[in-house]
Amino acid sequence: MRLSARNCLKGKVVSVSDGAVNAEVVLELAGGSRLCAIVTRDAVEELGLESGVDASAVIKASNIILAVPA
Amino acid sequence: MRLSARNCLKGKVVSVSDGAVNAEVVLELAGGSRLCAIVTRDAVEELGLESGVDASAVIKASNIILAVPA
Amino acid sequence: MRLSARNCLKGKVVSVSDGAVNAEVVLELAGGSRLCAIVTRDAVEELGLESGVDASAVIKASNIILAVPA
Amino acid sequence: MRLSARNCLKGKVVSVSDGAVNAEVVLELAGGSRLCAIVTRDAVEELGLESGVDASAVIKASNIILAVPA
Amino acid sequence: MRLSARNCLKGKVVSVSDGAVNAEVVLELAGGSRLCAIVTRDAVEELGLESGVDASAVIKASNIILAVPA
Amino acid sequence: MRLSARNCLKGKVVSVSDGAVNAEVVLELAGGSRLCAIVTRDAVEELGLESGVDASAVIKASNIILAVPA
Repeated sequence: MRLSARNCLKGKVVSVSDGAVNAEVVLELAGGSRLCAIVTRDAVEELGLESGVDASAVIKASNIILAVPA
Repeated sequence: MRLSARNCLKGKVVSVSDGAVNAEVVLELAGGSRLCAIVTRDAVEELGLESGVDASAVIKASNIILAVPA
Repeated sequence: MRLSARNCLKGKVVSVSDGAVNAEVVLELAGGSRLCAIVTRDAVEELGLESGVDASAVIKASNIILAVPA
Repeated sequence: MRLSARNCLKGKVVSVSDGAVNAEVVLELAGGSRLCAIVTRDAVEELGLESGVDASAVIKASNIILAVPA
Repeated sequence: MRLSARNCLKGKVVSVSDGAVNAEVVLELAGGSRLCAIVTRDAVEELGLESGVDASAVIKASNIILAVPA
Repeated sequence: MRLSARNCLKGKVVSVSDGAVNAEVVLELAGGSRLCAIVTRDAVEELGLESGVDASAVIKASNIILAVPA
Protein backbone atom coordinates (compact mmCIF):
# COMPACT_ATOMS: atom_id res chain seq x y z
CA MET A 1 0.00 0.00 0.00
CA ARG A 2 1.31 3.47 -0.87
CA LEU A 3 -0.06 6.46 1.08
CA SER A 4 -0.78 10.12 0.31
CA ALA A 5 0.58 11.11 3.74
CA ARG A 6 3.86 12.98 3.17
CA ASN A 7 5.58 11.56 6.26
CA CYS A 8 6.43 7.91 6.91
CA LEU A 9 9.23 7.72 9.52
CA LYS A 10 10.85 4.31 10.09
CA GLY A 11 11.53 3.25 13.68
CA LYS A 12 11.35 0.50 16.32
CA VAL A 13 8.81 0.12 19.13
CA VAL A 14 10.39 0.74 22.55
CA SER A 15 7.28 0.57 24.77
CA VAL A 16 3.49 0.04 24.77
CA SER A 17 1.24 1.14 27.67
CA ASP A 18 -2.45 0.17 27.60
CA GLY A 19 -5.52 2.23 28.44
CA ALA A 20 -9.17 1.16 28.35
CA VAL A 21 -9.80 2.05 24.66
CA ASN A 22 -6.43 3.45 23.61
CA ALA A 23 -2.75 2.57 24.07
CA GLU A 24 0.38 4.74 24.09
CA VAL A 25 3.16 3.40 21.83
CA VAL A 26 6.69 4.91 21.86
CA LEU A 27 8.82 4.52 18.74
CA GLU A 28 12.57 5.21 18.42
CA LEU A 29 13.43 6.69 15.01
CA ALA A 30 16.69 6.46 13.09
CA GLY A 31 18.91 9.11 14.68
CA GLY A 32 17.54 8.39 18.14
CA SER A 33 14.62 10.80 18.50
CA ARG A 34 11.47 9.29 20.01
CA LEU A 35 7.84 9.55 18.87
CA CYS A 36 4.78 8.85 21.05
CA ALA A 37 1.62 7.67 19.25
CA ILE A 38 -1.83 6.98 20.67
CA VAL A 39 -3.64 4.19 18.80
CA THR A 40 -6.50 1.87 19.76
CA ARG A 41 -5.79 -1.30 21.75
CA ASP A 42 -7.29 -3.28 18.85
CA ALA A 43 -4.63 -1.83 16.55
CA VAL A 44 -1.85 -2.80 18.99
CA GLU A 45 -3.12 -6.40 18.94
CA GLU A 46 -3.76 -6.61 15.18
CA LEU A 47 -0.35 -5.14 14.27
CA GLY A 48 1.51 -7.12 16.95
CA LEU A 49 3.04 -3.92 18.33
CA GLU A 50 5.50 -4.74 21.12
CA SER A 51 8.97 -3.72 22.17
CA GLY A 52 11.57 -4.44 19.45
CA VAL A 53 9.11 -4.60 16.52
CA ASP A 54 9.86 -2.50 13.39
CA ALA A 55 7.14 0.09 12.74
CA SER A 56 6.74 3.38 10.89
CA ALA A 57 4.99 6.58 11.96
CA VAL A 58 2.61 7.91 9.28
CA ILE A 59 1.82 11.62 9.73
CA LYS A 60 -0.21 13.95 7.46
CA ALA A 61 1.71 17.16 6.66
CA SER A 62 -1.33 19.17 7.80
CA ASN A 63 -1.13 17.60 11.28
CA ILE A 64 2.26 19.12 12.08
CA ILE A 65 2.73 22.43 13.94
CA LEU A 66 6.13 24.13 13.53
CA ALA A 67 7.81 25.93 16.42
CA VAL A 68 10.81 28.29 16.60
CA PRO A 69 12.54 29.66 19.70
CA ALA A 70 10.79 32.77 21.11
CA MET B 1 5.84 27.91 26.52
CA ARG B 2 5.52 24.20 27.39
CA LEU B 3 3.07 22.08 25.37
CA SER B 4 0.83 19.10 26.07
CA ALA B 5 1.74 17.59 22.68
CA ARG B 6 3.89 14.51 23.33
CA ASN B 7 6.14 15.02 20.31
CA CYS B 8 8.49 17.95 19.69
CA LEU B 9 11.18 16.90 17.16
CA LYS B 10 14.11 19.30 16.66
CA GLY B 11 15.29 19.93 13.09
CA LYS B 12 16.38 22.48 10.47
CA VAL B 13 14.30 23.89 7.60
CA VAL B 14 15.57 22.65 4.22
CA SER B 15 12.89 24.12 1.92
CA VAL B 16 9.70 26.21 1.82
CA SER B 17 7.26 26.17 -1.15
CA ASP B 18 4.34 28.62 -1.18
CA GLY B 19 0.72 28.06 -2.11
CA ALA B 20 -2.11 30.60 -2.11
CA VAL B 21 -3.18 30.10 1.54
CA ASN B 22 -0.77 27.37 2.67
CA ALA B 23 2.95 26.60 2.32
CA GLU B 24 4.86 23.30 2.38
CA VAL B 25 7.88 23.33 4.73
CA VAL B 26 10.41 20.46 4.78
CA LEU B 27 12.43 19.91 7.96
CA GLU B 28 15.52 17.69 8.37
CA LEU B 29 15.57 15.98 11.79
CA ALA B 30 18.57 14.80 13.79
CA GLY B 31 19.49 11.47 12.23
CA GLY B 32 18.64 12.70 8.75
CA SER B 33 14.98 11.76 8.30
CA ARG B 34 12.82 14.48 6.71
CA LEU B 35 9.39 15.77 7.76
CA CYS B 36 7.00 17.72 5.51
CA ALA B 37 4.59 20.15 7.24
CA ILE B 38 1.80 22.25 5.71
CA VAL B 39 1.31 25.55 7.55
CA THR B 40 -0.25 28.86 6.54
CA ARG B 41 1.81 31.42 4.59
CA ASP B 42 1.22 33.87 7.45
CA ALA B 43 2.93 31.42 9.81
CA VAL B 44 5.95 31.11 7.45
CA GLU B 45 6.34 34.91 7.49
CA GLU B 46 5.73 35.40 11.23
CA LEU B 47 8.17 32.61 12.24
CA GLY B 48 10.75 33.60 9.63
CA LEU B 49 10.82 30.04 8.26
CA GLU B 50 13.45 29.71 5.54
CA SER B 51 16.18 27.28 4.58
CA GLY B 52 18.76 26.83 7.38
CA VAL B 53 16.54 28.06 10.24
CA ASP B 54 16.23 25.85 13.37
CA ALA B 55 12.65 24.69 13.92
CA SER B 56 10.82 21.89 15.76
CA ALA B 57 7.90 19.74 14.61
CA VAL B 58 5.11 19.58 17.22
CA ILE B 59 2.83 16.55 16.72
CA LYS B 60 -0.07 15.32 18.92
CA ALA B 61 0.27 11.61 19.76
CA SER B 62 -3.30 11.10 18.53
CA ASN B 63 -2.35 12.40 15.06
CA ILE B 64 0.09 9.57 14.34
CA ILE B 65 -0.85 6.36 12.47
CA LEU B 66 1.48 3.38 12.97
CA ALA B 67 2.32 1.02 10.10
CA VAL B 68 4.01 -2.40 10.00
CA PRO B 69 5.07 -4.40 6.94
CA ALA B 70 2.19 -6.47 5.47
CA MET C 1 1.83 -2.25 4.92
CA ARG C 2 -0.78 -2.68 7.66
CA LEU C 3 -2.02 0.41 9.49
CA SER C 4 -3.19 1.22 13.02
CA ALA C 5 -5.93 3.48 11.59
CA ARG C 6 -9.28 1.75 12.26
CA ASN C 7 -10.86 2.88 8.99
CA CYS C 8 -9.76 1.92 5.47
CA LEU C 9 -12.69 2.42 3.06
CA LYS C 10 -12.26 1.03 -0.48
CA GLY C 11 -13.43 3.22 -3.38
CA LYS C 12 -12.68 4.63 -6.84
CA VAL C 13 -11.47 8.15 -7.71
CA VAL C 14 -14.17 10.16 -9.50
CA SER C 15 -12.43 13.55 -9.70
CA VAL C 16 -9.23 15.48 -8.84
CA SER C 17 -9.07 19.31 -8.69
CA ASP C 18 -5.69 20.98 -8.17
CA GLY C 19 -4.75 23.88 -5.92
CA ALA C 20 -1.30 25.48 -5.52
CA VAL C 21 -0.07 23.17 -2.72
CA ASN C 22 -3.08 20.90 -2.20
CA ALA C 23 -5.58 19.02 -4.37
CA GLU C 24 -9.18 17.92 -3.71
CA VAL C 25 -9.83 14.26 -4.58
CA VAL C 26 -13.36 12.79 -4.59
CA LEU C 27 -13.75 9.05 -4.03
CA GLU C 28 -16.89 6.95 -4.59
CA LEU C 29 -17.22 4.19 -1.97
CA ALA C 30 -18.96 0.83 -2.27
CA GLY C 31 -22.64 1.62 -1.77
CA GLY C 32 -22.34 4.91 -3.63
CA SER C 33 -21.54 7.46 -0.91
CA ARG C 34 -18.80 9.94 -1.81
CA LEU C 35 -15.78 11.08 0.22
CA CYS C 36 -13.77 14.26 -0.42
CA ALA C 37 -10.09 14.23 0.63
CA ILE C 38 -7.54 17.05 0.53
CA VAL C 39 -4.00 15.77 -0.12
CA THR C 40 -0.87 17.45 -1.47
CA ARG C 41 -0.35 17.76 -5.23
CA ASP C 42 2.85 15.74 -4.86
CA ALA C 43 0.79 12.88 -3.41
CA VAL C 44 -1.64 13.01 -6.36
CA GLU C 45 1.30 12.67 -8.77
CA GLU C 46 3.19 9.98 -6.80
CA LEU C 47 0.06 7.80 -6.32
CA GLY C 48 -1.18 8.38 -9.87
CA LEU C 49 -4.56 9.52 -8.56
CA GLU C 50 -6.95 10.18 -11.46
CA SER C 51 -10.53 9.40 -12.35
CA GLY C 52 -11.21 5.64 -12.42
CA VAL C 53 -8.26 4.61 -10.23
CA ASP C 54 -8.93 2.30 -7.22
CA ALA C 55 -8.01 3.98 -3.93
CA SER C 56 -8.86 3.65 -0.24
CA ALA C 57 -9.63 6.34 2.33
CA VAL C 58 -7.62 5.87 5.56
CA ILE C 59 -9.18 7.68 8.54
CA LYS C 60 -8.14 7.63 12.22
CA ALA C 61 -11.08 6.84 14.51
CA SER C 62 -10.22 9.94 16.55
CA ASN C 63 -10.69 12.17 13.47
CA ILE C 64 -14.42 11.37 13.12
CA ILE C 65 -17.20 13.51 14.63
CA LEU C 66 -20.60 11.80 15.04
CA ALA C 67 -23.84 13.69 14.40
CA VAL C 68 -27.47 12.85 15.17
CA PRO C 69 -30.62 14.74 14.10
CA ALA C 70 -31.43 17.68 16.45
CA MET D 1 -26.83 23.29 11.51
CA ARG D 2 -24.83 23.14 8.23
CA LEU D 3 -21.12 22.28 8.42
CA SER D 4 -18.02 23.25 6.44
CA ALA D 5 -16.75 19.64 6.68
CA ARG D 6 -16.95 18.14 3.19
CA ASN D 7 -17.92 14.66 4.39
CA CYS D 8 -21.12 13.70 6.22
CA LEU D 9 -21.76 9.95 5.77
CA LYS D 10 -25.15 8.62 6.92
CA GLY D 11 -25.20 5.33 8.84
CA LYS D 12 -26.54 3.36 11.82
CA VAL D 13 -24.74 2.60 15.11
CA VAL D 14 -23.89 -1.12 15.40
CA SER D 15 -21.86 -1.08 18.65
CA VAL D 16 -20.53 1.17 21.44
CA SER D 17 -17.63 0.12 23.74
CA ASP D 18 -16.70 2.37 26.68
CA GLY D 19 -13.29 3.44 27.93
CA ALA D 20 -12.49 5.68 30.91
CA VAL D 21 -12.65 9.01 29.01
CA ASN D 22 -13.40 7.84 25.45
CA ALA D 23 -15.72 5.34 23.77
CA GLU D 24 -15.40 3.43 20.46
CA VAL D 25 -18.54 3.67 18.29
CA VAL D 26 -18.94 1.53 15.14
CA LEU D 27 -21.26 2.80 12.40
CA GLU D 28 -22.56 0.84 9.39
CA LEU D 29 -22.82 3.04 6.30
CA ALA D 30 -25.16 2.69 3.33
CA GLY D 31 -23.52 0.02 1.15
CA GLY D 32 -22.36 -1.92 4.20
CA SER D 33 -18.89 -0.55 4.91
CA ARG D 34 -18.16 0.10 8.59
CA LEU D 35 -16.61 3.15 10.25
CA CYS D 36 -15.07 3.21 13.75
CA ALA D 37 -15.13 6.54 15.61
CA ILE D 38 -13.60 7.45 18.98
CA VAL D 39 -15.65 10.08 20.83
CA THR D 40 -15.91 11.05 24.49
CA ARG D 41 -18.22 9.10 26.82
CA ASP D 42 -20.08 12.36 27.51
CA ALA D 43 -20.85 12.62 23.78
CA VAL D 44 -22.19 9.04 23.71
CA GLU D 45 -24.57 9.90 26.57
CA GLU D 46 -25.65 13.32 25.26
CA LEU D 47 -26.33 12.02 21.71
CA GLY D 48 -27.97 8.82 22.96
CA LEU D 49 -25.62 6.72 20.82
CA GLU D 50 -26.56 3.04 21.06
CA SER D 51 -27.01 0.12 18.69
CA GLY D 52 -29.70 0.81 16.03
CA VAL D 53 -29.62 4.63 16.29
CA ASP D 54 -29.23 6.66 13.06
CA ALA D 55 -26.03 8.74 13.06
CA SER D 56 -23.73 10.40 10.55
CA ALA D 57 -19.93 10.49 10.41
CA VAL D 58 -18.58 14.03 9.90
CA ILE D 59 -15.01 14.06 8.54
CA LYS D 60 -12.86 17.01 7.43
CA ALA D 61 -11.37 16.46 3.94
CA SER D 62 -7.93 17.29 5.37
CA ASN D 63 -8.19 14.39 7.84
CA ILE D 64 -8.30 11.71 5.15
CA ILE D 65 -5.20 9.85 3.88
CA LEU D 66 -5.53 8.15 0.48
CA ALA D 67 -3.92 4.78 -0.22
CA VAL D 68 -3.33 2.83 -3.44
CA PRO D 69 -2.02 -0.72 -3.84
CA ALA D 70 1.82 -0.90 -3.77
CA MET E 1 -27.98 18.26 14.01
CA ARG E 2 -26.22 17.57 17.34
CA LEU E 3 -22.50 16.74 17.29
CA SER E 4 -20.17 14.57 19.35
CA ALA E 5 -17.47 17.28 19.18
CA ARG E 6 -17.10 18.74 22.68
CA ASN E 7 -16.46 22.30 21.47
CA CYS E 8 -18.88 24.51 19.56
CA LEU E 9 -17.88 28.18 20.01
CA LYS E 10 -20.35 30.82 18.77
CA GLY E 11 -18.94 33.81 16.88
CA LYS E 12 -19.22 36.14 13.86
CA VAL E 13 -17.17 36.05 10.64
CA VAL E 14 -14.82 39.04 10.39
CA SER E 15 -12.91 38.11 7.22
CA VAL E 16 -12.56 35.50 4.45
CA SER E 17 -9.44 35.20 2.24
CA ASP E 18 -9.48 32.75 -0.67
CA GLY E 19 -6.82 30.32 -1.83
CA ALA E 20 -6.95 27.93 -4.78
CA VAL E 21 -8.56 24.98 -2.94
CA ASN E 22 -8.87 26.38 0.61
CA ALA E 23 -9.94 29.65 2.23
CA GLU E 24 -8.93 31.26 5.55
CA VAL E 25 -11.92 32.41 7.63
CA VAL E 26 -11.47 34.52 10.79
CA LEU E 27 -14.19 34.39 13.44
CA GLU E 28 -14.62 36.74 16.44
CA LEU E 29 -15.89 34.86 19.50
CA ALA E 30 -17.93 36.22 22.42
CA GLY E 31 -15.38 37.94 24.64
CA GLY E 32 -13.42 39.19 21.65
CA SER E 33 -10.84 36.47 21.03
CA ARG E 34 -10.37 35.54 17.37
CA LEU E 35 -10.21 32.10 15.72
CA CYS E 36 -8.73 31.36 12.28
CA ALA E 37 -10.15 28.36 10.38
CA ILE E 38 -9.07 26.89 7.06
CA VAL E 39 -11.99 25.36 5.13
CA THR E 40 -12.52 24.58 1.45
CA ARG E 41 -13.72 27.32 -0.92
CA ASP E 42 -16.76 25.15 -1.69
CA ALA E 43 -17.68 25.26 2.01
CA VAL E 44 -17.37 29.08 2.06
CA GLU E 45 -19.82 29.31 -0.87
CA GLU E 46 -22.29 26.67 0.39
CA LEU E 47 -22.45 28.15 3.92
CA GLY E 48 -22.52 31.75 2.66
CA LEU E 49 -19.57 32.67 4.89
CA GLU E 50 -18.84 36.38 4.66
CA SER E 51 -18.07 39.24 7.02
CA GLY E 52 -20.86 39.76 9.57
CA VAL E 53 -22.41 36.30 9.30
CA ASP E 54 -23.03 34.30 12.53
CA ALA E 55 -21.02 31.06 12.59
CA SER E 56 -19.72 28.58 15.17
CA ALA E 57 -16.33 26.87 15.41
CA VAL E 58 -16.63 23.10 15.94
CA ILE E 59 -13.45 21.57 17.41
CA LYS E 60 -12.81 17.98 18.57
CA ALA E 61 -11.33 17.86 22.10
CA SER E 62 -8.55 15.64 20.76
CA ASN E 63 -7.46 18.36 18.30
CA ILE E 64 -6.48 20.84 21.03
CA ILE E 65 -2.93 21.20 22.40
CA LEU E 66 -2.61 22.90 25.80
CA ALA E 67 0.27 25.27 26.55
CA VAL E 68 1.54 26.79 29.82
CA PRO E 69 4.22 29.45 30.28
CA ALA E 70 7.78 27.99 30.30
CA MET F 1 8.62 29.14 21.66
CA ARG F 2 6.54 30.63 18.81
CA LEU F 3 4.14 28.32 16.94
CA SER F 4 2.84 28.09 13.37
CA ALA F 5 -0.64 27.23 14.69
CA ARG F 6 -2.90 30.22 13.95
CA ASN F 7 -4.92 29.89 17.15
CA CYS F 8 -3.63 30.32 20.71
CA LEU F 9 -6.54 31.12 23.06
CA LYS F 10 -5.67 32.20 26.62
CA GLY F 11 -7.74 30.76 29.46
CA LYS F 12 -7.78 29.16 32.93
CA VAL F 13 -8.21 25.48 33.80
CA VAL F 14 -11.56 24.84 35.49
CA SER F 15 -11.45 21.01 35.73
CA VAL F 16 -9.35 17.91 34.96
CA SER F 17 -10.83 14.38 34.77
CA ASP F 18 -8.48 11.42 34.33
CA GLY F 19 -8.82 8.40 32.10
CA ALA F 20 -6.41 5.45 31.76
CA VAL F 21 -4.20 7.00 29.04
CA ASN F 22 -5.93 10.34 28.44
CA ALA F 23 -7.43 13.12 30.56
CA GLU F 24 -10.20 15.64 29.82
CA VAL F 25 -9.24 19.24 30.68
CA VAL F 26 -11.80 22.08 30.60
CA LEU F 27 -10.54 25.63 30.06
CA GLU F 28 -12.51 28.88 30.55
CA LEU F 29 -11.55 31.48 27.94
CA ALA F 30 -11.69 35.27 28.23
CA GLY F 31 -15.34 36.13 27.58
CA GLY F 32 -16.54 33.03 29.43
CA SER F 33 -16.81 30.38 26.70
CA ARG F 34 -15.43 26.96 27.68
CA LEU F 35 -13.12 24.63 25.73
CA CYS F 36 -12.69 20.90 26.41
CA ALA F 37 -9.32 19.33 25.47
CA ILE F 38 -8.22 15.71 25.62
CA VAL F 39 -4.51 15.35 26.38
CA THR F 40 -2.42 12.50 27.80
CA ARG F 41 -2.19 12.02 31.58
CA ASP F 42 1.59 12.49 31.28
CA ALA F 43 0.99 15.94 29.81
CA VAL F 44 -1.36 16.87 32.69
CA GLU F 45 1.38 15.95 35.19
CA GLU F 46 4.29 17.56 33.31
CA LEU F 47 2.42 20.86 32.75
CA GLY F 48 0.94 20.88 36.26
CA LEU F 49 -2.57 21.28 34.85
CA GLU F 50 -5.08 21.73 37.67
CA SER F 51 -8.02 23.97 38.46
CA GLY F 52 -7.04 27.66 38.55
CA VAL F 53 -3.86 27.33 36.44
CA ASP F 54 -3.39 29.68 33.44
CA ALA F 55 -3.20 27.74 30.15
CA SER F 56 -3.72 28.40 26.45
CA ALA F 57 -5.48 26.28 23.82
CA VAL F 58 -3.37 25.83 20.67
CA ILE F 59 -5.47 24.83 17.63
CA LYS F 60 -4.40 24.41 13.99
CA ALA F 61 -6.66 26.37 11.60
CA SER F 62 -7.15 23.19 9.56
CA ASN F 63 -8.62 21.40 12.61
CA ILE F 64 -11.64 23.70 12.87
CA ILE F 65 -15.04 22.96 11.26
CA LEU F 66 -17.35 25.96 10.77
CA ALA F 67 -21.12 25.64 11.28
CA VAL F 68 -24.02 27.95 10.40
CA PRO F 69 -27.70 27.59 11.36
CA ALA F 70 -29.61 25.26 8.96
